Amino acid sequence: MKIAVLPGDGIGTEIVAEATKVLKALDLKFEMESALVGGAAYEAHGHPLPESTLNLAKNADAVLFGAVGDWKYDKLDRPLRPEQAILGLRKNLGLFANFRPAICYEQLVGASSLKPELIAGLDILIIRELTGDIYFGQPRGRRVATDGHFPSAEEAFDTMRYSKPEIERIARVAFEAARKRGKKVTSVDKANVLETFQFWKDVVTEVHKDYPDVELEHMYVDNAAMQLVKKPKAFDVIVTGNMFGDILSDEASMLTGSIGMLPSASLNSKNQGLYEPSHGSAPDIAGKGVANPLATILSAAMMLRFSLNQEEAARRIEAAVQKVLAQGLRTPDIYSEGTTKVGTAQMGDAVVKAL
Amino acid sequence: MKIAVLPGDGIGTEIVAEATKVLKALDLKFEMESALVGGAAYEAHGHPLPESTLNLAKNADAVLFGAVGDWKYDKLDRPLRPEQAILGLRKNLGLFANFRPAICYEQLVGASSLKPELIAGLDILIIRELTGDIYFGQPRGRRVATDGHFPSAEEAFDTMRYSKPEIERIARVAFEAARKRGKKVTSVDKANVLETFQFWKDVVTEVHKDYPDVELEHMYVDNAAMQLVKKPKAFDVIVTGNMFGDILSDEASMLTGSIGMLPSASLNSKNQGLYEPSHGSAPDIAGKGVANPLATILSAAMMLRFSLNQEEAARRIEAAVQKVLAQGLRTPDIYSEGTTKVGTAQMGDAVVKAL
Ligand SMILES: CC(C)[C@H](C(=O)O)[C@@H](O)C(=O)O
Ligand SMILES: CC(C)[C@H](C(=O)O)[C@@H](O)C(=O)O
Repeated sequence: MKIAVLPGDGIGTEIVAEATKVLKALDLKFEMESALVGGAAYEAHGHPLPESTLNLAKNADAVLFGAVGDWKYDKLDRPLRPEQAILGLRKNLGLFANFRPAICYEQLVGASSLKPELIAGLDILIIRELTGDIYFGQPRGRRVATDGHFPSAEEAFDTMRYSKPEIERIARVAFEAARKRGKKVTSVDKANVLETFQFWKDVVTEVHKDYPDVELEHMYVDNAAMQLVKKPKAFDVIVTGNMFGDILSDEASMLTGSIGMLPSASLNSKNQGLYEPSHGSAPDIAGKGVANPLATILSAAMMLRFSLNQEEAARRIEAAVQKVLAQGLRTPDIYSEGTTKVGTAQMGDAVVKAL
Repeated sequence: MKIAVLPGDGIGTEIVAEATKVLKALDLKFEMESALVGGAAYEAHGHPLPESTLNLAKNADAVLFGAVGDWKYDKLDRPLRPEQAILGLRKNLGLFANFRPAICYEQLVGASSLKPELIAGLDILIIRELTGDIYFGQPRGRRVATDGHFPSAEEAFDTMRYSKPEIERIARVAFEAARKRGKKVTSVDKANVLETFQFWKDVVTEVHKDYPDVELEHMYVDNAAMQLVKKPKAFDVIVTGNMFGDILSDEASMLTGSIGMLPSASLNSKNQGLYEPSHGSAPDIAGKGVANPLATILSAAMMLRFSLNQEEAARRIEAAVQKVLAQGLRTPDIYSEGTTKVGTAQMGDAVVKAL
């Protein structure tokens, strides 16, 4: 079993160091190899996703990813910016299924913006399609308009698109996942305006015929953004496209108050996967040893479960994280009165000890 | 001055009746003419936006709109569904600038999903571009793919696009509005992924040169969806495209807990406007006399201010609404213990009395 370790920028290196510490403590046999990605790779090799990094990722069973990005790269041309690395990995590895749990940890209910009764016990799984939609659709670019409100004006454009097999496979992933949970899928679309999402709705409805034991609900994206605020616990599994999923998964994870705790997985059809925390590179706190490594440690657990077939080890990690929370250990982002404030490395060490 | 009154479906007729009651009580000279729109128009004339309704709207100084839509029309072909009326009005009247205030009413802080300290005193203005973007971009449709992940598969597609003058004019609207408020504009984009929104960001930055007294901040849409939850009061004016604006304005209005109180305005370059509540047609409570008419009454106030040049009358209505809230009158959607529950018509009567 081979793991490509890509720490990236900002707090990426610190949190990934703790996750690899935890992995090493498991007494499992796997090879880990690190490479630069994002801004760090741009500095060293002039590109955020160098050929060597991409090859390492392609040839691994799984990628453990930290985070990329820093304001100082904002002025670079788009293809050279750190985020392009993550888009490149998704595309080149065909990581079409993104799993983002939005869970509210019991001990962290108080950290949520929402009232405790609305959020306590929340457990949503957002499944976002990750290699299609307007993220990768061609054609795109700038040109002189030939119609519209201002014909002959300069304009920019992008193409939103989804093909039937793309929608089918992500719908199946969602129905299968719901079967193992609350047996309800909310498919989020904008069928009242977009051809792409009328098609999405039609295809999801068709695939649903194979899953009569799972309830299917359709919801417009604007309504979903509202219902997440109003009644988040009404959701079980949400499945949606790349663009809407980007927005809704971030909204949902912030609602939990536990964003520093939320892992994510991005899988392809061979169960090869990329695992990363739901939060970003947080350059403002990088290098200070205060970042929360738990989302990355929990991402490593997801990796063991989904790509490395080590369910037992995954559970051990998850139980260890529960234990350190029960012990009252908190990094600053989740600290509250009466708990014990610890740094990144202390938190990692505590998880290792709790294993 | 001529007002086209389009009550629409569901609670639309009930809430618009109260708003017109308030308008009539003002002793101003204007002509009001009603017409069917949405599902009601489809039933009577076979189309959600009949020629006669569109002409009435075009020839009026302002349109007072209720709400459209009902589940029973879900099975109709898209061009015949009630929502198409609203898209058709926007397009045909060129209503490119949508104003959606997200205000948390002091007396209603408790109705918000968010903790009171995060939401009390909230006053954001979301300015959404309303006639461009992927809502109206051509080409769109279904076809057989010729490239992508599954060449030769059936696919659906849409075109996102913005031209320079479209972005310029909405940016100016936002900067002008910010000047009269907190002097800060947050332009929401997805420049890290979309050509259209890199262009958006570039053009907004250029227009900003004419408004050095206003602070401009750029934010990705996924981050904006999070920051609205985390720290909503950090925003003043948000300006964004049609699609992102649809999602974020609904998220923001639900956050306030006061969605039954929030008006909206959609203006064209001649200050002709369409005024409607931020909430929908709520078919589940239609006909019961319990809907909250205040968002529609406040929309009528916006209409007086923006399209009919009657600032004084607008303020009178707004003060009257404040007064009935202070009196403790509440429709069921905003009711809490210790206040007085009233129905739609009673609420309208109370506003008239308070004028
Ligand atoms: C960095 C960016 C390109 C990316 C996305 O939009 O997908 C990020 O927001 C995410 O959700 O992983
Ligand atoms: C009904 C629908 C087409 C519309 C939109 O998406 O613009 C609505 O959601 C709105 O925000 O006014």
